[in-house]
Amino acid sequence: MVASQPTCENNEKKPNNPVFRHQLSVRLYDTDAAGVLYFGSQFRLAHDAFETFMAQHGFPISIMMTEPYLLVVRHAQSDYTAPVMLGDTVDIDLYIERLGRTSFTCNYTLQVNDMPVGKAKTVHVTIDRKTRNAVAMPGEMRAALQLHKVDQ
Amino acid sequence: MVASQPTCENNEKKPNNPVFRHQLSVRLYDTDAAGVLYFGSQFRLAHDAFETFMAQHGFPISIMMTEPYLLVVRHAQSDYTAPVMLGDTVDIDLYIERLGRTSFTCNYTLQVNDMPVGKAKTVHVTIDRKTRNAVAMPGEMRAALQLHKVDQ
Amino acid sequence: MVASQPTCENNEKKPNNPVFRHQLSVRLYDTDAAGVLYFGSQFRLAHDAFETFMAQHGFPISIMMTEPYLLVVRHAQSDYTAPVMLGDTVDIDLYIERLGRTSFTCNYTLQVNDMPVGKAKTVHVTIDRKTRNAVAMPGEMRAALQLHKVDQ
Amino acid sequence: MVASQPTCENNEKKPNNPVFRHQLSVRLYDTDAAGVLYFGSQFRLAHDAFETFMAQHGFPISIMMTEPYLLVVRHAQSDYTAPVMLGDTVDIDLYIERLGRTSFTCNYTLQVNDMPVGKAKTVHVTIDRKTRNAVAMPGEMRAALQLHKVDQ
Repeated sequence: MVASQPTCENNEKKPNNPVFRHQLSVRLYDTDAAGVLYFGSQFRLAHDAFETFMAQHGFPISIMMTEPYLLVVRHAQSDYTAPVMLGDTVDIDLYIERLGRTSFTCNYTLQVNDMPVGKAKTVHVTIDRKTRNAVAMPGEMRAALQLHKVDQ
Repeated sequence: MVASQPTCENNEKKPNNPVFRHQLSVRLYDTDAAGVLYFGSQFRLAHDAFETFMAQHGFPISIMMTEPYLLVVRHAQSDYTAPVMLGDTVDIDLYIERLGRTSFTCNYTLQVNDMPVGKAKTVHVTIDRKTRNAVAMPGEMRAALQLHKVDQ
Repeated sequence: MVASQPTCENNEKKPNNPVFRHQLSVRLYDTDAAGVLYFGSQFRLAHDAFETFMAQHGFPISIMMTEPYLLVVRHAQSDYTAPVMLGDTVDIDLYIERLGRTSFTCNYTLQVNDMPVGKAKTVHVTIDRKTRNAVAMPGEMRAALQLHKVDQ
Repeated sequence: MVASQPTCENNEKKPNNPVFRHQLSVRLYDTDAAGVLYFGSQFRLAHDAFETFMAQHGFPISIMMTEPYLLVVRHAQSDYTAPVMLGDTVDIDLYIERLGRTSFTCNYTLQVNDMPVGKAKTVHVTIDRKTRNAVAMPGEMRAALQLHKVDQ
């Protein structure tokens, strides 16, 4: 292999739509006594989309149990624009907003019945398991994320 | 409609296999620092199966937000027979173990790669929203549950 | 202060230090398979501090079950600067960063053994229970929050 | 006691009342859209009492991150006898119901304003970290638990 970044090869073609959609239902567990989605649960929903996305691209989050690097969250944020009810089906659209050498930003939009209900972002960093210093992410991971990058 | 219990009619036919199967993945959120499924998360997984089961039988758990009765849990128990790891796909088999006038018992078996990893039971009671006394469950609910009853 | 807003009176004196400190322990439940605090749990810890703070100032969050207004979260964000381990005692320092007519921003700093491990913010809005439009917060609430406001 | 099990010494005296009391508040996070404590959260409350109990007896649950044995839950059960509301202060009384060589059973009673609201049990087993076979618990742990054993 001669390419300067051989690990960056990835057989997945750039999809027509780089946005990854994940769907799930709001469970009793996710709600609170105000009768709606608990604010913290929106992060659980977003991360469920993230774990599904990563697994489908060959990086199930469980690999970090065995790899020399960990993939950790450095920042997370959510906005809540409409109440989400018990039993609602939530469509989560995920794309990569920023892609660096050691970190990337995931952007999430949440919709119920095609109406926006919330947004979220998570910033992930690859760190060395022992030193916990940031390290370059694997080339294949970067290539997979690149396919779902949306330019701002 | 002439039948003595008209509300008990249900167009679903008794399935060949009364057991309802639900599948889900163990997320980072469900695990703990011991590296496996947190014991309390097994209840969340079981109840996810329960909510899916009820919704597919016409009783989404959200109806209790509007109905005069609530469906509440009176008892819950879990056994843990093998460690469940991050990323594992868990098959949950649910059936009705006991079906009374105001309450019923759900039985759950959890498997990973066809190996049993845990069991659970939940006892549900229909109560009046105001008095919180037990009341007879709707006939359609009872009929739906009956189709998934397994005699002990 | 003229008597036009009598409800704004508050007998609590401006504390020498407007920062409210709350302490809690990281439980097995809060951790994940990476062996550290799950990122979403930091919101639970911060909100535990918020609920304690509000209760001690006469506004237990449970009042929203009976009041004509709800206090909802519009935005939440967290930064993670050092790993937090199972059993760690976390000191959470809370202050009010912004105080408006219908909303305010809480700022949280998390420390373990006097070392910063994370930060968080939550934006809370008072809304009418029925219309869900923003409404002015009660004067007493505003007065209590004012005592813990730190100018940026 | 002959010196064959020197590790069984424990300087804690048998308390007059072997029951360990732990108190906590029901947070928004613990509730669900039915307006009360989510059934699964009762396990979180009970385990919070358990972790506090173990830490105060010299066995913070975090030791299992470094010890050759793990302390895992083999069985858990809860009964719900009265609704628990947002903001309720819950008193949890914990005692050891059964104490074996490799396992023990914790019994929990939950009260709000001196009224029983629920019960729980957890069965804990010490297992070898690698083989995951049951192993004898440390003598000091057994001695500490013995002080809080209530004969049935």
